Amino acid sequence: MKHTMVRANGASFHVAETGHGAPLLLLHGWPEFWLTWEPVMARLADRYRLIAPDLRGFGESDKPDGPFGAQDHAADVLALLDALGIERTGVVGHDVGGAAMQPLARTASERLAGLFFFGFVYPGIGSRMAAPDRLNEIWYQSFNQMEMAPTLVGASQESCRAYTSHFLRHWAYRKNAFDKVLSAFVENFLKPGNLAGGFAHYKASHAGRIAMIKGQAPPLPPITVPTCVRWPEHDPLMPYEWTDRLGETFVNLDLAPFPDVGHFPHRENPDRAAAEIGAYFDRRGWH
Amino acid sequence: MKHTMVRANGASFHVAETGHGAPLLLLHGWPEFWLTWEPVMARLADRYRLIAPDLRGFGESDKPDGPFGAQDHAADVLALLDALGIERTGVVGHDVGGAAMQPLARTASERLAGLFFFGFVYPGIGSRMAAPDRLNEIWYQSFNQMEMAPTLVGASQESCRAYTSHFLRHWAYRKNAFDKVLSAFVENFLKPGNLAGGFAHYKASHAGRIAMIKGQAPPLPPITVPTCVRWPEHDPLMPYEWTDRLGETFVNLDLAPFPDVGHFPHRENPDRAAAEIGAYFDRRGWH
Repeated sequence: MKHTMVRANGASFHVAETGHGAPLLLLHGWPEFWLTWEPVMARLADRYRLIAPDLRGFGESDKPDGPFGAQDHAADVLALLDALGIERTGVVGHDVGGAAMQPLARTASERLAGLFFFGFVYPGIGSRMAAPDRLNEIWYQSFNQMEMAPTLVGASQESCRAYTSHFLRHWAYRKNAFDKVLSAFVENFLKPGNLAGGFAHYKASHAGRIAMIKGQAPPLPPITVPTCVRWPEHDPLMPYEWTDRLGETFVNLDLAPFPDVGHFPHRENPDRAAAEIGAYFDRRGWH
Repeated sequence: MKHTMVRANGASFHVAETGHGAPLLLLHGWPEFWLTWEPVMARLADRYRLIAPDLRGFGESDKPDGPFGAQDHAADVLALLDALGIERTGVVGHDVGGAAMQPLARTASERLAGLFFFGFVYPGIGSRMAAPDRLNEIWYQSFNQMEMAPTLVGASQESCRAYTSHFLRHWAYRKNAFDKVLSAFVENFLKPGNLAGGFAHYKASHAGRIAMIKGQAPPLPPITVPTCVRWPEHDPLMPYEWTDRLGETFVNLDLAPFPDVGHFPHRENPDRAAAEIGAYFDRRGWH
């Protein structure tokens, strides 16, 4: 694994890179950072050049004052491609990474060989996000915006572990998926500014999320970049039923469930995650 | 101030008591305990016997395994009245205390000389509780149910202070209302079991709250005990507009706004809070 710091869009980004072949960019979610992709990267390194940045605010990347959200992450990614001299790439992501991929695809479709998603927020989820029975799932989207949140979660190793592992276990279907890297995740989020850096996404996303829930979000042009979605079958945060309107946003869509996993297919079943990613970009002729 | 431990309903309750006259029972909210009433108690001690228990799970009272909610608190209060040899009393409360007063009034109206509320949850709030624009206000009702919550909030003095003072400041209109007692509040909630004891109310209330939001709560008989509500004018948690359906629950209702305060009139303006309470029970002939 090669680690470099890359200057792009006015900030420094940590980029982990491995493998040889056509480039695949891997965009992590919250509460994650580049390391979440390591098992998938190891399995695809003989066929692809795998590039996993820490998004702005996360990991070893810069953490300027927020809030910064999907639009900002997308601008960062585009500038990163320029800085790395990458003309065209496949992009893989979920969660916050999946949110960033949508503005990215709308502004730079010619740079993208294809999009591959696990679960993520897209406009068609709509009011279902905040249905009464789901309040106990979405509270963190509000909590993460509170000024006290970094203080509370970062008070001690124990509290950071309690908060981070809550999500890494609760959202997983295979509950022990992160056991071996949990300490690395906790250590990562305890680095100065990393908790606030991750929370910045929730501040930036709030107005758009509420507009989506109210059905008042302005309509966006559909995304024409060929798209593969392998939505988790058992993600408590984002039920499979919510895929029913993906076709409205993604014109060229290959959708199937990812069986027997929760929110983190790349960590819960990296063999299959890597196989699905590889097979899709193969079908796209992206070698 | 006299402090006693009173055995009732299978648990031990800490009761703070002062003053002489007809009894008034004072029921605190979350994140509070008996001490929240101290300024009001001092102002009414020449006219009333003021009795402020720590509710089950709070302060120095027992903290059996939860969840326990409004029905349990009401049963506790009734048993406390028996144990204290009090035949009839006025009751004052808000927030969690106000939730407990409703089942209390339905099961033991003959024991109650009158009810006096500040803001509290009652069925007529309905789906407004979870309107999209209010998600950033109600997240704590979910967070407080999480298994990690006591660990996270109780990790350190600093984290308990960050969490507790968030609510005591955010919900107040006069932001410094708790400054002088904040350390006492933090120390109180850091006592073993107190965080979980307060959170138990949110676990117990969850199903009923969701049913209310969905409009699926079974109708309850109206409360006939004479009731005074002085709802705060500036409570960010419970807007004054939400008083519009109080008359459906409280048949004999004296409603007016409490001006220039937020969620904590008893701490934000104890002079007026005591005057309103005293005037109401005076009008009721409860001396």
